[in-house]
Amino acid sequence: MTFDAMWQDLEPVGRAQSGGYRRFAWTGEDHTLREWFAAECRRRGLDLAEDRMGNQWGWWWDGPGTVDDAAAAGNSGVAIGSHLDSVPDGGAYDGPLGVVSALATVDRLRAAGVRPDRPLAVVNFVDEEGARFGVACAGSRVITGAMTPERALALTDAEGVSMAEALTAAGRDPSAVGPDAEALRRVGAFVELHVEQGRGLVDLGVPVAVASDIWPHGRWRFDFPGEANHAGTTRLEDRQDAMLGYADLVLGARKEAQLRGCVATVGKVAVTPGGVNAIPSHVTGWLDSRGPDEDEVRATVEELRSRAGHFGATVTEESWTATTRFDQPLSDRLRDVLASEAELSVPVLGTGAGHDAGILAAAGIPSAMLFVRNPTGISHSPEEFAERDDCHAGVDALTACVQDLVTR
Amino acid sequence: MTFDAMWQDLEPVGRAQSGGYRRFAWTGEDHTLREWFAAECRRRGLDLAEDRMGNQWGWWWDGPGTVDDAAAAGNSGVAIGSHLDSVPDGGAYDGPLGVVSALATVDRLRAAGVRPDRPLAVVNFVDEEGARFGVACAGSRVITGAMTPERALALTDAEGVSMAEALTAAGRDPSAVGPDAEALRRVGAFVELHVEQGRGLVDLGVPVAVASDIWPHGRWRFDFPGEANHAGTTRLEDRQDAMLGYADLVLGARKEAQLRGCVATVGKVAVTPGGVNAIPSHVTGWLDSRGPDEDEVRATVEELRSRAGHFGATVTEESWTATTRFDQPLSDRLRDVLASEAELSVPVLGTGAGHDAGILAAAGIPSAMLFVRNPTGISHSPEEFAERDDCHAGVDALTACVQDLVTR
Repeated sequence: MTFDAMWQDLEPVGRAQSGGYRRFAWTGEDHTLREWFAAECRRRGLDLAEDRMGNQWGWWWDGPGTVDDAAAAGNSGVAIGSHLDSVPDGGAYDGPLGVVSALATVDRLRAAGVRPDRPLAVVNFVDEEGARFGVACAGSRVITGAMTPERALALTDAEGVSMAEALTAAGRDPSAVGPDAEALRRVGAFVELHVEQGRGLVDLGVPVAVASDIWPHGRWRFDFPGEANHAGTTRLEDRQDAMLGYADLVLGARKEAQLRGCVATVGKVAVTPGGVNAIPSHVTGWLDSRGPDEDEVRATVEELRSRAGHFGATVTEESWTATTRFDQPLSDRLRDVLASEAELSVPVLGTGAGHDAGILAAAGIPSAMLFVRNPTGISHSPEEFAERDDCHAGVDALTACVQDLVTR
Repeated sequence: MTFDAMWQDLEPVGRAQSGGYRRFAWTGEDHTLREWFAAECRRRGLDLAEDRMGNQWGWWWDGPGTVDDAAAAGNSGVAIGSHLDSVPDGGAYDGPLGVVSALATVDRLRAAGVRPDRPLAVVNFVDEEGARFGVACAGSRVITGAMTPERALALTDAEGVSMAEALTAAGRDPSAVGPDAEALRRVGAFVELHVEQGRGLVDLGVPVAVASDIWPHGRWRFDFPGEANHAGTTRLEDRQDAMLGYADLVLGARKEAQLRGCVATVGKVAVTPGGVNAIPSHVTGWLDSRGPDEDEVRATVEELRSRAGHFGATVTEESWTATTRFDQPLSDRLRDVLASEAELSVPVLGTGAGHDAGILAAAGIPSAMLFVRNPTGISHSPEEFAERDDCHAGVDALTACVQDLVTR
């Protein structure tokens, strides 16, 4: 299977009317994608293993001994890959580009006659976007212990279905979910290739970059109370309209982020009862905020918390990830390889997007990322795109890096 | 079946976790309520007829001739009733109080040995709240010609199901839907009893009122465009965030309504794509505005339309109903009857809520309303309530009025 053929395979799965994708964790679409990944691993003779959160690892190791033996002997493996799920109406590249490029890299190494001296895995992380249960990188958070299994299993989707119920419905055992030191011990390094989600590479005129760090970022849930009542018969002065506080949050988020050099977004809202002629009795808004400076992000959120307090809101931090620096020696090595092997002078870019590589890095696993040029900078949208030549350049770069990592 | 027994019958149907009701047009809950109404008509020997929108009419007429014969001879009937559907998480009284009181009134008249000289109908209007398809009073609007069948059938619910599809799924024939002059010719007068949706009667210390008019009121859909993109990686200055215009609408609606002595509410919103980490590419907000003065309501909406224009929004008027004055001679007659028969000095109150009685009045059918005291003024909420004594006082009043109307 060439890169292009794999890409074609994935194109119809979970495609929405918008032209974007709706591939949410533990749904039928997710199942199709997982089966596809497993088949691609089998086709290449990779040993498929699932960890305690259901992340899929396809290992290439001809020994001596098992992958665990190698790790125990100080020769832990290299993992490459990303995720296959999407945000609602997300693009085709965010996630799948890394998985398909990783599988294509295995093919390139084989075609070049490479025999790895270290185990090599292709990985598909589950539930990276958190689109269904609200917490991003749930797959890597749980196995690294960054999120407890109790909290993960109790998360609910928009229909009130808990992750535990969704796992059961998908034929899985929720009680097996938990941190998985054994699975992580096999991973001596992780390299995630990802489409860039900004205009850094376009502006530089280069197809591939190495990541420096991930901005501090978090999600907060703002619950505004109100009192349901008739929209026609209730005097303005008698109202407790939960929507007013929400609207103030939306406008406040933009203003405070602008003042502090951060970004802040309210992209999701839930209204009760949600009738045109009923005053809202409850409005929940979700704030996403990030920025290069941790203190400024924190100050933005605190200011919004204080504003929302005037409306009686309660604010819950659903996730918080401090600045994540990728492994410097590993990142430097990737840049050196690309300079010498591919004659690519590769820039170093920070990013406002969270990734499983960031969660693994925070858990002490040497991790790095490669970004592939995005001609518009648009992502999390049907318009997300990468030129095919740049995708192939990404595979070239990943192949060069992995060949270096597994043959020394 | 006493009032209390009928009330008990209805209590569990469509009850939501909130304690309120979710009884939407052409759903399973609606079907249960329609079957219940039909059974109550049969139990009383009323002749059940459906008009071309599926509104249910249970006629009591012992002749001479048919109800149509009587109408043709200038002896058209009296109709009493209301609706059984609800807003999302609405109360138990808005609608059902009028239907149950009408059925109880038939029982009272029979117990008193009354034999009507005019046909008498109990009516259950379908889809009064417009909770599912967005247009209130759809049942009465279609049969009176205030809404074309083409427009009604093309309305869609939140899942994209059209009213035509919903009717078909409910085993009905959408092609039969249309204005129904024949059904309306039978109705010489309509009296709708309804729980009050404000604090007028509480403040006056009286259980029952007669309605004067319905404020001009309407619904407008505001569509704000944006561009989906990643909430973490897109610079503020590169964003087109559809949520900002929406938030401005919410706050603007409150401000403009306050300035102009109207009410304005944004109780429903839909966001695309609706992910926490995606900038909204489209936000739709629904505005409900009403007030005692038509020009001021219009000016409020125009000001909001102009504000929304700065955000590139398109604004669609989904419904508009001018001031509706109830029939003066009929209303005066009801007050006279209540003063002489029940020794009730009945106040006259206006209302900001739309009703099927308003649609019939606008179509030239002499119509009037009775309001029953609401101790909190709250409606469209699980807390909506009327004391049982006041409900019975409502039935007393309706019985006195109807006895007078059908025996002269």
